[in-house]
Formats: sequence, C-alpha cells, structure tokens
Amino acid sequence: MSRFFSSKHKNLIPYTPGEQPKDMQYIKLNTNESPYPPSIKAQRYSSEAAQLLHLYPDPQCRALTEKLAQNLGVEYENVLVTNGSDEILNFAFMAFCDGEHGCVFPDITYGFYSVFADVNSVPYEQIPLNEDFTINARDYIGINKNIFIANPNAPTGIALSTAEIERIVKSNSDNIVVIDEAYVDFGNESCVPLTKKYDNLLVTQTFSKSRSMAGARLGFGVGCKELIADLNTIKYSTNPYNINKMTMAAGIGVLEDEEYTRANCKEIIKTREYTVRELEKLGFILTDSTTNFIFAKHPKVSGSEIYQKLRENGILVRHFDKKEICDYNRITIGTYEQMKTLVDTIGGIVK
Amino acid sequence: MSRFFSSKHKNLIPYTPGEQPKDMQYIKLNTNESPYPPSIKAQRYSSEAAQLLHLYPDPQCRALTEKLAQNLGVEYENVLVTNGSDEILNFAFMAFCDGEHGCVFPDITYGFYSVFADVNSVPYEQIPLNEDFTINARDYIGINKNIFIANPNAPTGIALSTAEIERIVKSNSDNIVVIDEAYVDFGNESCVPLTKKYDNLLVTQTFSKSRSMAGARLGFGVGCKELIADLNTIKYSTNPYNINKMTMAAGIGVLEDEEYTRANCKEIIKTREYTVRELEKLGFILTDSTTNFIFAKHPKVSGSEIYQKLRENGILVRHFDKKEICDYNRITIGTYEQMKTLVDTIGGIVK
Repeated sequence: MSRFFSSKHKNLIPYTPGEQPKDMQYIKLNTNESPYPPSIKAQRYSSEAAQLLHLYPDPQCRALTEKLAQNLGVEYENVLVTNGSDEILNFAFMAFCDGEHGCVFPDITYGFYSVFADVNSVPYEQIPLNEDFTINARDYIGINKNIFIANPNAPTGIALSTAEIERIVKSNSDNIVVIDEAYVDFGNESCVPLTKKYDNLLVTQTFSKSRSMAGARLGFGVGCKELIADLNTIKYSTNPYNINKMTMAAGIGVLEDEEYTRANCKEIIKTREYTVRELEKLGFILTDSTTNFIFAKHPKVSGSEIYQKLRENGILVRHFDKKEICDYNRITIGTYEQMKTLVDTIGGIVK
Repeated sequence: MSRFFSSKHKNLIPYTPGEQPKDMQYIKLNTNESPYPPSIKAQRYSSEAAQLLHLYPDPQCRALTEKLAQNLGVEYENVLVTNGSDEILNFAFMAFCDGEHGCVFPDITYGFYSVFADVNSVPYEQIPLNEDFTINARDYIGINKNIFIANPNAPTGIALSTAEIERIVKSNSDNIVVIDEAYVDFGNESCVPLTKKYDNLLVTQTFSKSRSMAGARLGFGVGCKELIADLNTIKYSTNPYNINKMTMAAGIGVLEDEEYTRANCKEIIKTREYTVRELEKLGFILTDSTTNFIFAKHPKVSGSEIYQKLRENGILVRHFDKKEICDYNRITIGTYEQMKTLVDTIGGIVK
C-alpha cells in the first residue's frame, strides 16, 4: 500500500478470482465457464470488428442493446450492457446505495457483494441462510433496505421461485431489489418479465456462463427505464466506452444463435444430472443445484482434502475456506468426458 | 432519474462523448481517432483469441502487461492495464482522492476530470490557463493537492516540458501527480522515466490514439509499484476481469509492431504540419499543437458557424460551448486526403 491510498480504502479486501495456475494443463472446473466454445457467429463477427479497431465503439451499444432487448421481450431503454455483470452490479451499488441507504444479502452468496459494498462505503447486513443452504424468502419481506440476491444462489446453486422473488420485490417498494441471474439459464425461470411490473427491480445477467463468452466480458441489467437511466449516468461518469467493438459484435453473434446456447444449456443440465447421480453413488451430499455447477461434500473426506487431491490429479475445483461451507467444493459442469474423469478421480479419493 | 438514485449523484452531469451521427457518411475528425487501421498482428491475434472466448481472460493480464512493461523500460509491477485510459483515471480518483484529499487541474482540459471528481465526491479546483492557453507550471508548484494534468493538454494540444512536469512532481511530494499522456506520441517526450525517481507520479497512456485501438478499449498507468498495487486493489474490488481476451491479444499484437505505430505517428505529424500551414494561409489562428489534433479559430467566422458548416458538408469536428474556447474547433488529423478535403471545404466557409 502506498502512503497516498485513501484512508477510506485502507481495510478494503479485494475479491479473489478463481485461480488460473500455469504449472500444468488442468481440467478447469473452478470458475463456472462453459465447456463449449462460443457460437461460430460470435467468432466471425468479432473478427470482422477487429478490422475497424481504430474507431471508437458506439458508446450507446445501440445494435447490441436493441437485439438483446428484443430477445428479452423488453425495450431498448430497459437494458444496459456492461463490461461483465460485475460492472452492472458495481454500478447498482454506486447508483442506489450510500451511507444512508445500506443493503442486505445472504451471508453465503457471491463473494463480491460485500466487496462492492466496501469499496463504495455502503453499510451492509448479511442474512444467514437456512441450515439446508436455502434462502428464507421471509427474511427479506418488508425489510426496507436495498437487497442483492443471486438467483440461483452461489455457490450453493439453489434457486428461489419467481413467486418468492416477487413477494420480496413487492414488499420493499421503496428500495431496490437486485436479482443476479448469472446462472438462470440452467433450468430456472427468469425474473426479467417482473421488471415491467415493478420499478424497484433490477435483474442482471451475464454472457459468461450459458452464452460461452466469459472471455469477452459482457453482462447486462434489465429494469424500468428510470433505473437504467440512473445506471447510464454512472456509466457516462466513469467509462462511457465500456464495451469494446469486438465484444459488442460477438454479443450480437451469440444473440443471433440462441438455439446453440439453448442446446449447450440442455447438454450441461444432462451432464449435471449424470454427475450428481454418480457422486451420490459415492456417498456425496449435494445441494439441489439448478446451475452449471454443483456443490458437494463427502461425509468422510474433508472439502479441502478433496480439493487438494483433485488438484494433484490435474482437476481444479473451487474450495472456500468460510467455516459454514468449507466441507464443500463447488464443481463446474464441464463436458461429459471431463465429468467422467472427475467422477473416476474423486472415486479414488473417497474410497 | 428514478426515485432510488443516491442523493450524492443528483447533480452529476455525465461526460458527453463525441457525436457519432448515423444520418450520413462523415469524414470523422471529431474524436481524435487514428485514420489508420490497427496493426495486422492486432487483428490476427484477436481473431485467434475469439476462438477461446468461453474461458475467462487472465485477470492479471500477465502477458500483455509484461510486454508493455518491457517496451516502456519498466517492470511488470509498475504497470496496470485498464479498459481504456478513462478507467485508470477513474481508478486514480477512487484510490488517491477523497473528501479530505481534493485535487486540481486546469480549467480548460479533458472534460472528464471534473466528472470523475464529482462521481467520486472529490472536491476540486480548476486553475486558469494563461491567455495563450499554455499551462503555467508555477501555478502547480507546492500546492499540496493531488494534480491531474493532460500533457499535451486537451483540447489545446499544447505540452509542458518534462522538466516543468518534474518540478511540479518534486514540489508536491506528499500528493499524487497524474500526467495523462493520451497524446504524447505525436512529438513529445514521455514522463514514464520519471516514475522511477518519484513515488508520487502516475503516468497514464492509451492505445486509442497513436496505437489505432480506440475500438478495443485499452489504456494503462505507470508508477511505482506501491501506487500500482493500490490501483490493483481498486480494480479487484470493482471489476477484476476488466480486459477481455480479444483486446488483450490485440494489445500484444500492437506492441510487437511498434514500427508500424511509429510510422503512423510520423505520417500524422507530417499531415498536421501540412494542415496547420494551409489553415494559416486561410487566416486561421492555431495553438502550437503537438498532438493528433489541431485547435483553430478564424478571426472573422465564429467557431460554431465553422463547426456547423463543416457538418453540413459531411465533415465532423469537435466544438465546445465553453466561453473561453467557443471561438475554436478541435480538428483531428486524418489522412492527407481527408485533410485536403477539410482545407478545401473550410476555405469555402471562411472566404
């Protein structure tokens, strides 16, 4: 730390992204990437865009945003695309939270929420999950604070129903509810339609998981046009050209090829079900994940030992030190072949 | 504005990017882009990277940062690459400025500094330029505040010498001095070497101008390793994967092809000199620009009239309403052919 760092950040602990070790070739099941390459259209369009890199991108991202709005069944004014969904989440903290308007989120959830709160000097409260790792929707009814919920939640993979979300949104009409749907496409219903009914609901999604574009950095938020206008004010006050030309073009390619995305999601769900079955046979206890990852513990072998031994065998999964979940590992669903290797390897570890 | 927007942002006026009208094909001389396409290597590398878009980019941007550090003659730990140089500038405001540590910058300069200050609730003071639009270095000696100087300055195009910058940096050793070198490559000396001597100096640059990559969004900061560590803390607390794979790859391509960049800069300088000569013949008064744009007024025809008539003739330049500079237009240096068209058209307007 330099002697110039603002005192407001002195205790800031940044987010730690999943590891990307370079010492050997791993089966990477630790960052919830898609095992499938992006749509051929995404690749083609981005290569074409690279020929005109000397010109600024459209700061409004008009073509991409219009296509996205169309696919989502909303209007252009209801959508803001960002440099990954982390950016729209940070914008939401910047726009709607402050010293007076704190926020709440579950105590076990995407680890970045508390960091966003800290970097923006926003007070927050973390609401414990139920013992079975489900979110108790009643804990969020009428609490009069801004709310951030990942749905399905991470790293548990468990979803609330849209009816439960609607009750939360409705009962907190003077506060913002942000529903982070990074993993919605693997067997869940989206809350996007609810944004037409509630002016306090912001839904965020990403192109990083189901849409195979983690490397392109593209996320977005959907809400009523006033919310999106506020988020645009933040964007144009920090980084107006936040989306580069190649990512913009790739995004359009992916949106023109939704069948490919849907087919990949279907395949991932099938592989998830296979993996769950096989791990249960090995004695694992798993949450009811409806995402592209599973969350699993073994009654006899510790989470850190499984993590470490998998790593030694060339398989990366994500382990969290946090007490409540340290027995578990979060395992991304890869290809069937990768998961077969995982099952075989893990079978050797717990036998 | 929604009823949820934080009161701290209620008066925020976002930055306005240069217009990108779609009603007809313009000669675009309004956003200081390079008229030359990016290096072939940038195009090739980014297309290759697009094949692996389903995987996250390296959050450390190790390969790109190492190559950049090597080219700059500094170490990996001295450089942070960002999503355009707007992002590194915003990070600097976030990291080093706060309610107690305000900042100063010239009253006529890059219009974004005051927006960055406002969005981060940082008090600021604007120091008037001399009447000839030069920065008076003595105004910044020992002022005990964080300082932001674009060098060369925008939209005037006029540079301070590195000796003058050094005096400013040396005399404000308890504050950060940020030198924004977006336009340094068109005939100026960089302050990057001074970062080895002063722990309070941050130099920012961009790939958007001389490196023909405005569409890819790549900027960077150079400073002592403690400053860069602080800026990394901000990055990892807001958007760890801020650079996408394609931009990262394109950046490496550009850095492997510095001869192409140098040749383009040389050509732009030559075209600038031609344009200045021709406009002077038409009676224009110009600042002594050492950038890829010129700043010109005519004694008889107003700045807004010239702007408007050029626009009607299919040529976009940038006009600012601010009183002190509203007689002027900022004109990007395009290709020789584009500037010949500009000179001919403008000749008709002022005759």
